[in-house]
Amino acid sequence: MALKTKNEYIESLRSLNPTVYMFGKRVKDVVENPRIRAGIEATGATYELAEHPEHRNLFVTLSPLIHEPINRFNHPPRSIEDLVARVKINRTLARMVGTCHQRCTGMDCMCALSIVTFNVDQKYGTKYHDRVMEFIRYMQKNDLTGNAGVTDVKGDRSLSPKEQPDKDAYLHVVEKRDDGIIVRGAKAHQTGSLSSHELIILPTRALRKSEEEFAVAFAIPSDAKGIIHVVGRSSLDTRELEGYDCGNVNYSKYAPTVIFDNVFVPWDRVFMLGEVEFAVDLVSRFSAFHRQSHGGCKAGKLDCMVGAALNMIDFNGTQNANHLKEKIIDILYRSETLYGCSLAASYEGKQEPSGTYFINPVLANASKIHEGKEMAEAARLMIDVAGGFVADLPSDRDFDNPEIGPLIKKYLKGAAGVPSEHRIKMFRLVEKLAMESADTISDIHGGGSPAAHRMTILRESDLEARKKAARRLAGIPEDKP
Amino acid sequence: MALKTKNEYIESLRSLNPTVYMFGKRVKDVVENPRIRAGIEATGATYELAEHPEHRNLFVTLSPLIHEPINRFNHPPRSIEDLVARVKINRTLARMVGTCHQRCTGMDCMCALSIVTFNVDQKYGTKYHDRVMEFIRYMQKNDLTGNAGVTDVKGDRSLSPKEQPDKDAYLHVVEKRDDGIIVRGAKAHQTGSLSSHELIILPTRALRKSEEEFAVAFAIPSDAKGIIHVVGRSSLDTRELEGYDCGNVNYSKYAPTVIFDNVFVPWDRVFMLGEVEFAVDLVSRFSAFHRQSHGGCKAGKLDCMVGAALNMIDFNGTQNANHLKEKIIDILYRSETLYGCSLAASYEGKQEPSGTYFINPVLANASKIHEGKEMAEAARLMIDVAGGFVADLPSDRDFDNPEIGPLIKKYLKGAAGVPSEHRIKMFRLVEKLAMESADTISDIHGGGSPAAHRMTILRESDLEARKKAARRLAGIPEDKP
Amino acid sequence: MALKTKNEYIESLRSLNPTVYMFGKRVKDVVENPRIRAGIEATGATYELAEHPEHRNLFVTLSPLIHEPINRFNHPPRSIEDLVARVKINRTLARMVGTCHQRCTGMDCMCALSIVTFNVDQKYGTKYHDRVMEFIRYMQKNDLTGNAGVTDVKGDRSLSPKEQPDKDAYLHVVEKRDDGIIVRGAKAHQTGSLSSHELIILPTRALRKSEEEFAVAFAIPSDAKGIIHVVGRSSLDTRELEGYDCGNVNYSKYAPTVIFDNVFVPWDRVFMLGEVEFAVDLVSRFSAFHRQSHGGCKAGKLDCMVGAALNMIDFNGTQNANHLKEKIIDILYRSETLYGCSLAASYEGKQEPSGTYFINPVLANASKIHEGKEMAEAARLMIDVAGGFVADLPSDRDFDNPEIGPLIKKYLKGAAGVPSEHRIKMFRLVEKLAMESADTISDIHGGGSPAAHRMTILRESDLEARKKAARRLAGIPEDKP
Amino acid sequence: MALKTKNEYIESLRSLNPTVYMFGKRVKDVVENPRIRAGIEATGATYELAEHPEHRNLFVTLSPLIHEPINRFNHPPRSIEDLVARVKINRTLARMVGTCHQRCTGMDCMCALSIVTFNVDQKYGTKYHDRVMEFIRYMQKNDLTGNAGVTDVKGDRSLSPKEQPDKDAYLHVVEKRDDGIIVRGAKAHQTGSLSSHELIILPTRALRKSEEEFAVAFAIPSDAKGIIHVVGRSSLDTRELEGYDCGNVNYSKYAPTVIFDNVFVPWDRVFMLGEVEFAVDLVSRFSAFHRQSHGGCKAGKLDCMVGAALNMIDFNGTQNANHLKEKIIDILYRSETLYGCSLAASYEGKQEPSGTYFINPVLANASKIHEGKEMAEAARLMIDVAGGFVADLPSDRDFDNPEIGPLIKKYLKGAAGVPSEHRIKMFRLVEKLAMESADTISDIHGGGSPAAHRMTILRESDLEARKKAARRLAGIPEDKP
Repeated sequence: MALKTKNEYIESLRSLNPTVYMFGKRVKDVVENPRIRAGIEATGATYELAEHPEHRNLFVTLSPLIHEPINRFNHPPRSIEDLVARVKINRTLARMVGTCHQRCTGMDCMCALSIVTFNVDQKYGTKYHDRVMEFIRYMQKNDLTGNAGVTDVKGDRSLSPKEQPDKDAYLHVVEKRDDGIIVRGAKAHQTGSLSSHELIILPTRALRKSEEEFAVAFAIPSDAKGIIHVVGRSSLDTRELEGYDCGNVNYSKYAPTVIFDNVFVPWDRVFMLGEVEFAVDLVSRFSAFHRQSHGGCKAGKLDCMVGAALNMIDFNGTQNANHLKEKIIDILYRSETLYGCSLAASYEGKQEPSGTYFINPVLANASKIHEGKEMAEAARLMIDVAGGFVADLPSDRDFDNPEIGPLIKKYLKGAAGVPSEHRIKMFRLVEKLAMESADTISDIHGGGSPAAHRMTILRESDLEARKKAARRLAGIPEDKP
Repeated sequence: MALKTKNEYIESLRSLNPTVYMFGKRVKDVVENPRIRAGIEATGATYELAEHPEHRNLFVTLSPLIHEPINRFNHPPRSIEDLVARVKINRTLARMVGTCHQRCTGMDCMCALSIVTFNVDQKYGTKYHDRVMEFIRYMQKNDLTGNAGVTDVKGDRSLSPKEQPDKDAYLHVVEKRDDGIIVRGAKAHQTGSLSSHELIILPTRALRKSEEEFAVAFAIPSDAKGIIHVVGRSSLDTRELEGYDCGNVNYSKYAPTVIFDNVFVPWDRVFMLGEVEFAVDLVSRFSAFHRQSHGGCKAGKLDCMVGAALNMIDFNGTQNANHLKEKIIDILYRSETLYGCSLAASYEGKQEPSGTYFINPVLANASKIHEGKEMAEAARLMIDVAGGFVADLPSDRDFDNPEIGPLIKKYLKGAAGVPSEHRIKMFRLVEKLAMESADTISDIHGGGSPAAHRMTILRESDLEARKKAARRLAGIPEDKP
Repeated sequence: MALKTKNEYIESLRSLNPTVYMFGKRVKDVVENPRIRAGIEATGATYELAEHPEHRNLFVTLSPLIHEPINRFNHPPRSIEDLVARVKINRTLARMVGTCHQRCTGMDCMCALSIVTFNVDQKYGTKYHDRVMEFIRYMQKNDLTGNAGVTDVKGDRSLSPKEQPDKDAYLHVVEKRDDGIIVRGAKAHQTGSLSSHELIILPTRALRKSEEEFAVAFAIPSDAKGIIHVVGRSSLDTRELEGYDCGNVNYSKYAPTVIFDNVFVPWDRVFMLGEVEFAVDLVSRFSAFHRQSHGGCKAGKLDCMVGAALNMIDFNGTQNANHLKEKIIDILYRSETLYGCSLAASYEGKQEPSGTYFINPVLANASKIHEGKEMAEAARLMIDVAGGFVADLPSDRDFDNPEIGPLIKKYLKGAAGVPSEHRIKMFRLVEKLAMESADTISDIHGGGSPAAHRMTILRESDLEARKKAARRLAGIPEDKP
Repeated sequence: MALKTKNEYIESLRSLNPTVYMFGKRVKDVVENPRIRAGIEATGATYELAEHPEHRNLFVTLSPLIHEPINRFNHPPRSIEDLVARVKINRTLARMVGTCHQRCTGMDCMCALSIVTFNVDQKYGTKYHDRVMEFIRYMQKNDLTGNAGVTDVKGDRSLSPKEQPDKDAYLHVVEKRDDGIIVRGAKAHQTGSLSSHELIILPTRALRKSEEEFAVAFAIPSDAKGIIHVVGRSSLDTRELEGYDCGNVNYSKYAPTVIFDNVFVPWDRVFMLGEVEFAVDLVSRFSAFHRQSHGGCKAGKLDCMVGAALNMIDFNGTQNANHLKEKIIDILYRSETLYGCSLAASYEGKQEPSGTYFINPVLANASKIHEGKEMAEAARLMIDVAGGFVADLPSDRDFDNPEIGPLIKKYLKGAAGVPSEHRIKMFRLVEKLAMESADTISDIHGGGSPAAHRMTILRESDLEARKKAARRLAGIPEDKP
């Protein structure tokens, strides 16, 4: 019974009781809050496609841990095929939900932990790896959703964690007890934290000796005592809340700030504690996996953007404008280069000592730099194709108003045979795809800042080999200036 | 008494009684509606700066028509200096309001009409030019704000106006009477229509013989009978309505669809009627003027974006990150190339037969193509500099909540000495500058579609001279292949 | 004895006697002509690496046709692994020779022919496939190099082949005889035609009924009677000819126009004749393969460009300039996205009915569009890093001059410990990598024009699926507007 | 008699006797050396247009110094009109010669000196300004061409001038005598040094106390004793030397390294000596002027590139390919934004204490950053439009060869009615415009490195004002964080 249906997933969330604030008010029933629900629906698609005849084979695999069929989102890759499947399920999902489905971050944490804890244990004789694998078994058996908690709020960026006036700027251990540890801090941009059963916490950066208290990794239920989810603002957030003008009629994204206000974590959920030199490995593995996830996901979102732009051409009657066709191609090729680079990062992956496969980090980071630069251009092109109503389309409520509704429908009529309502909805979708901040800004900052991706690619590339190649061509000794 | 104070301007709007819908409901008092008011405040800045000791000289000039000091927004340029001032007042204003101030479109219509009606009269012996100048005198004397009504809703784009199944897709004359005409249709993207006293309507495209009914230009009070303003949605529209999380605390933009449901226009306000061959001249003059306005305005918005990014660096404590400095430069140089090109379009302007000066259309259109491509890149860079909270910052209401407010302020503390509140407000401003749709999408579609600007630059450039220059260099006869 | 050493390869070229002109003069001994030799050396590297202990495993495979080890350049892929190896050998080679090695085009023709002739035979009962496989066996057994002849000179582009005033603008059959056919026409941009033993000719475009004479594919020795190679000009061509200031000391590229002046082709070398509807399939398969080859090759060239830029930083003493590091990253990530997309095109390949594997054409074309846009940017960045001497460095002969040589060396001294000679040679390499036309312009036009790649990606993408996805998200019926 | 004809100019160069090396050999008669002559012809165009009825008014002005008509190239601007004329003469010239005309650098030095020496004199009571103005009078009276010597060879870039192991890496004073000074060093990239009568030398960078010996500015005849011009290599340099396949049939560019091997400069030609704090002012004024010159010049070159591309469309018969039209527009708008920004830098100039007008440095530097990024893109687009023969077109000598000439002409025939010769020559011109290194690389490095332009724009922009504007919008105090 490893696999949950989408409905079972949603019901399972009802049994949680997280502490949630939105716009200054407590939210009691997250499943019924329409904004959070739109996010839950997106995560729900990961369950739905695992049941879907066409997609089940892609989404479900047999677990070597529990020997049952499981959803790949709880499956650390054991082969190249597994790595490739990561990208493909993300593209399929993003094409289906048109936004972030929010379940990849937990997977990416489990993948990173399954690699790094093995290495930590090798060095220190600790038992982290067993704990992690046990946790993953639990996730698999119950088909749960995990959420990554990586990005600390960071306080003053010019200071290291321990130099901060308020050390809570980086989540850290404040007490070690017999039964577990107490942690305090806050993690920002926690996409889908309320669509998740478990939060999986990693350090956010490289750490040095004497910063042991910050070198902590663990998992904790999303409704554990002391955890407060503050669902912040995104650009179109009131649309779901008010139930109209949503653009994407079923799905959306939200990303709370999650505060850990003296939260207890039992020892069997602690996956790292004080091994500072492994912090950078953990966060960079996570980031590399997550950048690869993005490659699939954003390619799928670009598919929706291409689709929206093509429909707008049909609905506006602009099929004969050649320059619009060129713009479609300009979006298309960006989606494929992104997808291709991310796939290649999978195909060129390697097995780590723990048995988990790791993607090629240079290719994964290259795809993310590409994403950060090209998604904005793709959105610009889609807006250009669609037209100015992306900015100021009358509301559904105007269309429903008996006095002006008919007038507006009349004036928003486009190509013959296309109902005004359809054209209007497509404009609304374009608005959502281009102007929704929670999803759009992850193109730039998701999986760490662009600067981090850039440093990674520089560090991971074999620069000496390139220098030698050039020296050889120039006819000078390869090994010295 | 030609000049109104900002307060007098706002009071003058109270005396109007336009028909307005927003989100399906009638809006009775536009001045008190916080969303529309944020737009009115932005237009109000055009009055405020005309009183401001530092800026008065730039904003106020002596009218050759009424021989009194007037606001330049009602002044068709009579010199190169006047053309240049157009760009500079727009940059100054945009830097002050951080968004569209909404008063340039009316000015751009008056400029275009003052040129083209003269030429129409020359050909046909009509009296349009006198009417236009009389209208401008009226605008000057009362320091009124005009609004451009150019963009028709256009229906099926593959069809010409008269081929449309519903001819109302292009605003047209449905009846000529002794005292005036009756018009029907709708104009989209009417930025600031409710911040304006008068709507000034032009055709939206080139017209051909037998399309006389669409070749109509006129002015009409914004609250005339039959005019319905439908204020559509923009991405952050509920922020002003709810009065928190506004980012730009005072100013915003809105752009209604304005329906003309059998509106009567008296003859003295009719500025063109049936002279189809001049329609393209009118719209392309307007567009060229408006593209030049954009050059100043968007440079000023980029100033705010640079400022916001610089503050974020201070507030985050990232002054030592060299790559952020490079990104600041990347925004800066874009603002200056845009501004420079727009200024050059002014300095290289020429006097038209009517006496009004016209800008250099190639340079004006080049600046707009540049804008359409580079503003999105600038926004991306600003987001990159600022960080991920642009996407999901907790709400002001969370900060005000006694339970979680202190926690959130604690966790949003950045650099030493910077109050969390300031950092939060600056993130909010970045969100507004990057993700507000009404203003952002005008970077692409404002003043007509990018494709239109591109065709204009191709048409207005002397391609033959360039071909000859190349032939001469290549050593082949200049005058034949 | 299937594999030739590099020396045997070069010797084998001496036994050919092609008709060659360069700069208006007959070239008798192509192997000893230093310009052509630099190209031959580059192709020679494909033989050299097949002997190289580190690379042999990558370059050599067992032929299922002749059951001997062969060079992969004569091996139509029989597996995904084979497709992947195509990209990797190209990157390895380009990193070694820093330019085009010229042997991939023949391979790409053989690959395309091995797929399409099978399909032609299926339809028409012809025997082309056997002939092609026999030809490939011959190439494998003798480890020969093939060269693609695809791009016709095309005459007036506004006319189809048969509408041309001079039908020879497209290579075509002028006579069918008992023993074979006579063809006439010319193929442009025949990279490495004189480094090759055999020319493999395909149609250049889609053909229609009544254009049967142009639907011709065949192979012919590069020195067959009637074939004239005219080695044109490239930007640095005299450097090799004069033997100094070469930049790349060993390797270069040349690309003759090859005229077929009534050339006889025996029937066993005719691979298509008149099956017009397959012409487009043949050329688009070839192009897709070739675009994928480019992905590996240009990534390898970018490796050399990164290496040259890094050396220039060392040699100039500019290690502390952070912005230069950013520029290195900007080249690096471009090389990896290109490589990644090309690899993905391989990994996502599929087997065709003939047994040959075909790459994913969408990904292959996406990589080529990316290449066309980004290689120029990479060159710009490399020049920026290197400095102005790329434009006007004194000549080797100046350095050798006893009067001014010492002075120039003194003034070209850079960082401490770096001999001036090395810095000078590295500047020269940068010049070669950035300003050599034959190689650089293939970034744009290689494998067909950018417009062709763009149309291919549009045609091969499933646009309907994307439209449906968007409709579903927008909440409108998936199957109608 | 202030103005020379072009012939008089060329004759005047014959009377000079500079020490020149090219490719390791002494060049005795520079005027008859075809490569240098092509550069001299380009400079000659500055004389030719001053006689040309259509252009004389633009090029000639009345000198306030000698009260005679002079060529603007010896005229430090005394008004905004003069600043604007600088840009326009450069665009006109570049459109005429299709490359660098080489006379602007001397003008830019005279402009900078006329400003800065005045300020030095104010501080130190020196007499530099009088000497400079006397020198300018001399230049004007004899209508001479001056050449800027700014860029030192710089040695190890990580070291300051005085830290260099060999101080000659920066030109400096090695002896002060009663009658003058002795200088030693070398200046790189001395575009047109042999087309000039006088070399005008400025320091290349900011200098500090104890670096007095490097703070030297002066003028010296280009054939003075001890001056050695080493004409280096550019990518197409042998074309002019061999007299065929030139592309640009009359004009070209060369840029020697000029060595100052203990050169004597009399006191009346010394314009700065030891006033270290003014070095940065001198070089940055020069650079700003020169960046503005580029704006005009490169816009004119882009005109030729547009023209060449348009002709290629005609000659290939590709008028119906819409995407080519889009590419033309993409070049066009780049030329106009560059021109516009450069014009604006002029129109927004200001008078300096010395009376000379200085351009707006922010706008001038913005135009150069834009140039550095967009020229490469324009070249790419032109190549895309033209087609692959840019890389490998047969030589003129092939066309002249009786055996293959007719065949090649046959196969290079394009659109009906266009002689093959014309199409061939236009391809050759495209090659020259895109692949000639001396001119192309100045797009990036001309007037100082891109990094220098970027730092200038950052330093010269009022960042505090922008920060305040953003603070005000965000609703936080303007004057503190």
